[in-house]
Amino acid sequence: MIDLRSDTITKPTKEMREAMFLAEVGDDVYGEDPTIIKLEETAAKILGKEAALFVTSGTQGNQIAVLTHCRQGDEIILDEDSHIVFYEGGAISAFAGVQPRTIKSENGMLDPKKLEEAIRTNDIHFPDTTLICLENTHNRSGGAVIPPSHMKKLFDVATEKKIPIHLDGARLFNSAVALNLPLTEFTQYTTTVQICLSKGLGAPVGSILAGPKEFIEKARKWRKRLGGGLRQVGILGAAGFVALTEMVDRLAIDHENAKILADGLDKHPLISVINKVETNIVLIDITKTGKRSDKFIEALKQIGILAVPFGPKTIRFTTHYDVSKENIKETVNKVLNLK
Amino acid sequence: MIDLRSDTITKPTKEMREAMFLAEVGDDVYGEDPTIIKLEETAAKILGKEAALFVTSGTQGNQIAVLTHCRQGDEIILDEDSHIVFYEGGAISAFAGVQPRTIKSENGMLDPKKLEEAIRTNDIHFPDTTLICLENTHNRSGGAVIPPSHMKKLFDVATEKKIPIHLDGARLFNSAVALNLPLTEFTQYTTTVQICLSKGLGAPVGSILAGPKEFIEKARKWRKRLGGGLRQVGILGAAGFVALTEMVDRLAIDHENAKILADGLDKHPLISVINKVETNIVLIDITKTGKRSDKFIEALKQIGILAVPFGPKTIRFTTHYDVSKENIKETVNKVLNLK
Amino acid sequence: MIDLRSDTITKPTKEMREAMFLAEVGDDVYGEDPTIIKLEETAAKILGKEAALFVTSGTQGNQIAVLTHCRQGDEIILDEDSHIVFYEGGAISAFAGVQPRTIKSENGMLDPKKLEEAIRTNDIHFPDTTLICLENTHNRSGGAVIPPSHMKKLFDVATEKKIPIHLDGARLFNSAVALNLPLTEFTQYTTTVQICLSKGLGAPVGSILAGPKEFIEKARKWRKRLGGGLRQVGILGAAGFVALTEMVDRLAIDHENAKILADGLDKHPLISVINKVETNIVLIDITKTGKRSDKFIEALKQIGILAVPFGPKTIRFTTHYDVSKENIKETVNKVLNLK
Amino acid sequence: MIDLRSDTITKPTKEMREAMFLAEVGDDVYGEDPTIIKLEETAAKILGKEAALFVTSGTQGNQIAVLTHCRQGDEIILDEDSHIVFYEGGAISAFAGVQPRTIKSENGMLDPKKLEEAIRTNDIHFPDTTLICLENTHNRSGGAVIPPSHMKKLFDVATEKKIPIHLDGARLFNSAVALNLPLTEFTQYTTTVQICLSKGLGAPVGSILAGPKEFIEKARKWRKRLGGGLRQVGILGAAGFVALTEMVDRLAIDHENAKILADGLDKHPLISVINKVETNIVLIDITKTGKRSDKFIEALKQIGILAVPFGPKTIRFTTHYDVSKENIKETVNKVLNLK
Repeated sequence: MIDLRSDTITKPTKEMREAMFLAEVGDDVYGEDPTIIKLEETAAKILGKEAALFVTSGTQGNQIAVLTHCRQGDEIILDEDSHIVFYEGGAISAFAGVQPRTIKSENGMLDPKKLEEAIRTNDIHFPDTTLICLENTHNRSGGAVIPPSHMKKLFDVATEKKIPIHLDGARLFNSAVALNLPLTEFTQYTTTVQICLSKGLGAPVGSILAGPKEFIEKARKWRKRLGGGLRQVGILGAAGFVALTEMVDRLAIDHENAKILADGLDKHPLISVINKVETNIVLIDITKTGKRSDKFIEALKQIGILAVPFGPKTIRFTTHYDVSKENIKETVNKVLNLK
Repeated sequence: MIDLRSDTITKPTKEMREAMFLAEVGDDVYGEDPTIIKLEETAAKILGKEAALFVTSGTQGNQIAVLTHCRQGDEIILDEDSHIVFYEGGAISAFAGVQPRTIKSENGMLDPKKLEEAIRTNDIHFPDTTLICLENTHNRSGGAVIPPSHMKKLFDVATEKKIPIHLDGARLFNSAVALNLPLTEFTQYTTTVQICLSKGLGAPVGSILAGPKEFIEKARKWRKRLGGGLRQVGILGAAGFVALTEMVDRLAIDHENAKILADGLDKHPLISVINKVETNIVLIDITKTGKRSDKFIEALKQIGILAVPFGPKTIRFTTHYDVSKENIKETVNKVLNLK
Repeated sequence: MIDLRSDTITKPTKEMREAMFLAEVGDDVYGEDPTIIKLEETAAKILGKEAALFVTSGTQGNQIAVLTHCRQGDEIILDEDSHIVFYEGGAISAFAGVQPRTIKSENGMLDPKKLEEAIRTNDIHFPDTTLICLENTHNRSGGAVIPPSHMKKLFDVATEKKIPIHLDGARLFNSAVALNLPLTEFTQYTTTVQICLSKGLGAPVGSILAGPKEFIEKARKWRKRLGGGLRQVGILGAAGFVALTEMVDRLAIDHENAKILADGLDKHPLISVINKVETNIVLIDITKTGKRSDKFIEALKQIGILAVPFGPKTIRFTTHYDVSKENIKETVNKVLNLK
Repeated sequence: MIDLRSDTITKPTKEMREAMFLAEVGDDVYGEDPTIIKLEETAAKILGKEAALFVTSGTQGNQIAVLTHCRQGDEIILDEDSHIVFYEGGAISAFAGVQPRTIKSENGMLDPKKLEEAIRTNDIHFPDTTLICLENTHNRSGGAVIPPSHMKKLFDVATEKKIPIHLDGARLFNSAVALNLPLTEFTQYTTTVQICLSKGLGAPVGSILAGPKEFIEKARKWRKRLGGGLRQVGILGAAGFVALTEMVDRLAIDHENAKILADGLDKHPLISVINKVETNIVLIDITKTGKRSDKFIEALKQIGILAVPFGPKTIRFTTHYDVSKENIKETVNKVLNLK
């Protein structure tokens, strides 16, 4: 099986296994896990923030961000296809009690004017707008990169209105590698940011939430309430540290593989690649095949390829560490021969 | 001052005052207020539902509906400009813990296909879709009427997916009068419905939530939690009964006045009426005046006319019981002479 | 029927009916109801607070207080038998998301030392304590009065810990009349207070929440979310104003009647009065009758008397405006002859 | 330093390190982690439940249980000193929106009669009672064991009222070892149960929530919303499996050490052991020393011993895998010589 369902499926590398085996650990609820302390300090530095917090998933990092920035009855603005509203089980409303106000974006890029209009004025009928969330790369736009220049425009609107920005940067490293820029070029335009160690970077489990020191202190208590205050979690932190410090540059290979995959699939007469393929995600439209996504996924499985549905007529492929260029070529060949 | 801000501002009529003075009352928390019992039974009948509940406002009726239909972590689908998401302070997320999934509508009419696509499938990342909300007339589309034929299409989608529909019918009487149809023509395509006695019908305070008997029984407890379980509230119920039984037909006058107003205002070279004016609301675009809404509202006030902003370049006028045809003509004259 | 179930059942007086008939009203969502404005200003003055807000019930006033003082994840301290935890449907947790920490009190009087111990220290496992709630008179202790001297002790603890106190003063007038003191003697030891116009004071509907100006401004938005932002509510406000300004002193009669009732009932060999009867509530223990409360209530009903169960072996009688001294004597006679 | 603060501080054993190094893993969000599958199946069997779910902490397991059993507006009954209300940041109210109704227990043992009285009857003022939570061993009673015979009594009350029981069994293995009984002797009297792999059993991270299959299916989505849906978490699962299958019997050593510690400390003239020391926790009262807990903890630290405050005059010591009998004897000697 060539598994292109998600970059989350990567197995920990040999270096990660060893790092976990040897990890020096302590009780992180007491703040005594040296591996976690090192990971959080390193991540904060790379992200250009005062402090950072290890969390068990991107969802957890995003939820903690919303819980810490907002209170119930507030409204937050975000793209209608953002992971936070689309894929997190409605948790921002269930737990933080906030109402999302969604805007349709262009490849994940909110229009600054629309953003400004969406911010509530002072009226007894209106909730207070207390957070803006961005996502970079933007998953449902096929891993689209939001350049720092665009983030700056949104940041300027937010700053004028005194509203913080949280960045869901689950795949921010992909953007950084795609544009060959340091992370801080992006994060300078956000108040807080979440990054995943377990997607393209290959760690088995874990994400980082970073922001101002006082914010992270409060976030720590929300993490505890969510059941994310863990004990000898330096085991996971050790793999996360390898991910953060040794696995970033190789994302370029995933991006290259995604381009090869896209170019290949696009040759199929009934398949169209519908995203720009800037990073490690390829989206295809299969309308012309006359099949629905679930049936097409099934057909792919029959020829040894795994992908995920992304709409009734859309399929997503994601390249990652456990898929080689040879696997990609094989995938293309098999799909082109698919009847 | 000619007050066209809202149909909520109407003063109780002489008949209402008298009905309140003479109202037979009891403790409604014990279910012993005869006037409320009569009002609820009458409303249920008119709306074609098993049972009804007096609530203190449209917002309260809508919130109780969401709390009773859903639980936290659910998702509800509604038009992005619906009163429930736009004007209720984010309460559906703050109290019911549900996430709104909003669709852009055409004059309040959701596209049945988009509705179907917005209903979540079974996936661990997704909240459950447990409610669809409609609004008729649709306030932010300028009192647009959604005809029963369109409601049926949405109801068919909902029924197939086994999802209830709640109708925010704060101004449903306006639709019924506009189309000259009984309310039941609309409410047959909804599970529950909320109507306001205090808008065009002129009651000082009060709305009705109607639906299946078992639903209303649960709704009663949610009303109590919201602080809406009242005592000798038959006082208000008496005025509400007058509103419900004697004030409906005269809405045609408000509609006629709105048309006169729209026709008049549209003659102003810098003003365009932007809605169809099917009921008692007129929306104008003032972009060409070069003024922002707040300044324009101020200018209107100077000449004795009150209206409300409805966007940075949009103004809403609403006709109602306390505004006569003469007032409307005077308004037109004054606005046409506005420099 | 002599109805001693609750002081909530009183019908509006003739003066109230007339005041409602003649009430000058406006749209209170726009802050334009002169009767409400007058009522709120008068109430604020009587309660010694900067501002006041008309709400539709004591429950709504208490819920708004908690929502405004706290945010989700906080903890509030209150007596385990307080109305807020016992009779409000769990709403403080459902809506405000706060966890009650309850203390057993002596007749509604929290022990200052226990209060101090219940306040949380700074620890990642602990919620923040952000509110203390008191109730005066204390319903479940049989209308027990908490003297200002005791309130001061609790206020001193709260002040040192910088935690606000909210007083559920649904029957605070009864305390004031019982001790012959102005309300401000009590409210000086609280940050916010809720009083009911619809219990002993006889208004058909309505309560007042009072506190600092900035607090009331925020409370107004929470009231709107709860569906308590009403229109020509001066109708109710007019009755409330009569209640507030003309009905207080006569509470002494209710208190006297309660004493007569208690003295009488206590003569029954199988009945014991178990509260001090300081105000308008009498609690009796019926264990010796061998009956459960529901059966005893039924037996009372057979002889023309209504009361409410207050535990499996406890019955509550409440005196009020619609029950005369003759009614009380008749009640005693009938109960003493009850087999 | 001899660290007796908590059994959570244990470092993973050599066997756990090796198991993690070699663990076969997959993406657990897709349900494809073989190590987690094996762990969950094994745990379900040991606990006598249909299904089990790996969660990252005891707090997370408890929160998921409450979210799955209840909805907002419900009430749950539990001991006033239970971990869920005392140590979980008020999360049951913040997230699940439920109101705790707390009962004072005798060493964690709720009185069946008090339990029955605390269950709400059907009344519009009351929330619905939808869950009873127990804790075994009971931490704040000093690791007290609740025998199955007592649990049965509570289960009988719950069963009659059709209310499920959730058991916080973070240290249930300690009870099982103390009474030399299989876990199922306890869990047969509960609907759901949470156990910790990371306390006495020594796993670095992880707990198990077990219950009916349909319950666990719903719980899985709540875990996702909390950010507890993880990827190659079989790494942690591997250590958890060692904990579950190889580390249980040795808890007897911790219990023995706790007794030695208690007997020793009790000889100090100013110190009294105040719990029964049935498992691995020793509570001492230090009132006679004239010191407050924080100062006493500091003094212990000076002589190389770590413990935690458990009240202003109470200290908790916990024995565990990383503390030997020699450490315990040394602790006793040092404390007895403490001035």
